[in-house]
Amino acid sequence: MGRVTTHRPVLRLDGGRVARRSDTLTVEEPLELRVDGRALAVTMRTPGHDVELAHGFLLTEGVIQAAADVAVARYCDGKGPDGRNTYNVLDVALAAGVPPPDPGVERNFYTTSSCGVCGKAALDAVRLRTRFSPSGDPARVSAATLSGLPAALREAQRVFASTGGLHAAGLFRADGSPLAVREDVGRHNAVDKVLGWALLHGLTPLAGCVLLVSGRASFELVQKAAMAGVPVLAAVSAPSSLAVELAEEQGMTLVGFLRGETMNVYTGAERIELDAGVGAERESEVVG
Amino acid sequence: MGRVTTHRPVLRLDGGRVARRSDTLTVEEPLELRVDGRALAVTMRTPGHDVELAHGFLLTEGVIQAAADVAVARYCDGKGPDGRNTYNVLDVALAAGVPPPDPGVERNFYTTSSCGVCGKAALDAVRLRTRFSPSGDPARVSAATLSGLPAALREAQRVFASTGGLHAAGLFRADGSPLAVREDVGRHNAVDKVLGWALLHGLTPLAGCVLLVSGRASFELVQKAAMAGVPVLAAVSAPSSLAVELAEEQGMTLVGFLRGETMNVYTGAERIELDAGVGAERESEVVG
Repeated sequence: MGRVTTHRPVLRLDGGRVARRSDTLTVEEPLELRVDGRALAVTMRTPGHDVELAHGFLLTEGVIQAAADVAVARYCDGKGPDGRNTYNVLDVALAAGVPPPDPGVERNFYTTSSCGVCGKAALDAVRLRTRFSPSGDPARVSAATLSGLPAALREAQRVFASTGGLHAAGLFRADGSPLAVREDVGRHNAVDKVLGWALLHGLTPLAGCVLLVSGRASFELVQKAAMAGVPVLAAVSAPSSLAVELAEEQGMTLVGFLRGETMNVYTGAERIELDAGVGAERESEVVG
Repeated sequence: MGRVTTHRPVLRLDGGRVARRSDTLTVEEPLELRVDGRALAVTMRTPGHDVELAHGFLLTEGVIQAAADVAVARYCDGKGPDGRNTYNVLDVALAAGVPPPDPGVERNFYTTSSCGVCGKAALDAVRLRTRFSPSGDPARVSAATLSGLPAALREAQRVFASTGGLHAAGLFRADGSPLAVREDVGRHNAVDKVLGWALLHGLTPLAGCVLLVSGRASFELVQKAAMAGVPVLAAVSAPSSLAVELAEEQGMTLVGFLRGETMNVYTGAERIELDAGVGAERESEVVG
């Protein structure tokens, strides 16, 4: 857990001035995830919360549904050049009766589409795999609560300020109370870490919760949120076209450009309450 | 090529005000890359410059070295639900004598490491695969030239301003003259597109060139630059620890936080010339 940041000498140039100083870097290292001894994936991640990361990855890939589906998760005894454990290989033993992942479960999803693969085909594939659809979730969250979340996320990010190199994901209840915040050099890893935390705490499917990400919302992040049953996904920056399509397909509320009191609601506006307590969708019919 | 952005109605909330308006989104769609009819990878990308993307991907994965290694690259006739070609499947036929990619070339690299996998092991694997090491490249680039590149990149980015959702990669000569700029919802795709452009124009290995990326510099981006022989990689934001390690290993100059007249030089400072024409490394010995 001491490897989230590292230090390194750099030359700082500023106009004509040159100074040698120490710079703080975000640590990026490969984590090999094994399931029952077989290598399943390697992700480039920031060390820390690796057990959560593994659980979140297996949840969002459809391999497990609850903490009880994992019997043991532990680091292998791999040694680095210095003879110490690298803590970069994690082996997960599935509980009895849990089917092992299809060899290349992710690869099959991504690579066996017919020649007609397109956004629609990808959406169909995801819909089939989703066990916890957020579509029926009656959660409501106020615009004022949403407005306060980015500041809460930043406050919880201890590392970002010093390196500028970390993505964050935060999980909140609909009233804005924080559940967990995780950081990583990869935004998908930060999301897997908070979702894995939730699974380990028996909170999945995440009915009534809001997932906030510090950057953009891609197809992949909406997919992960859907696989965990998250009804509201908010992003500080822009969503992609396919992120919006998938959110709509899944009945998820997708908010983008959440900055201060402003935000764009792309899908599922019925879950957003204005300060007066009136749903945004209804209010907009008056305004728009 | 008309699918870089799309429009969609959103609810814009601003404090108590609600407005319905049209928002511009970056298009994200899956591209399936086939080699000699076999699916090799699917990447979530912004449509456009797909042939360049395919060439760049195959270059940086070590499958091809020159444009002549590809006989034909063309879209399959896949039809979407509307009966029109989706342009989301690209089939590459390798030239006679070019070995096909190892089934899962990337997967093998990423998943067959022994239990002792660590940063060092990953670096070793990359070093073995690199054909165009930038280590001996005598290129020099002035700090003033580097300072001007981000503005040139932004100026070339026509889409970013309207969506806030695109990464950019730009290739420049050491004197700052631009060669190519490409944008994509995925930064690795933006890099593959410019490197594929270079390969198609007979410019690889990219001796004497500077690659600029609009965001952070990860291990993956340094690896791609190294596979194309790029001697200088500059990023507007932070590099990761492993990005710096790999750049040093490869003899590449890595610049981060390139903003205005300020920048951090992490590795290969001997290629950076201060305005007086004195190498930064030497100057720093006087200053530091």
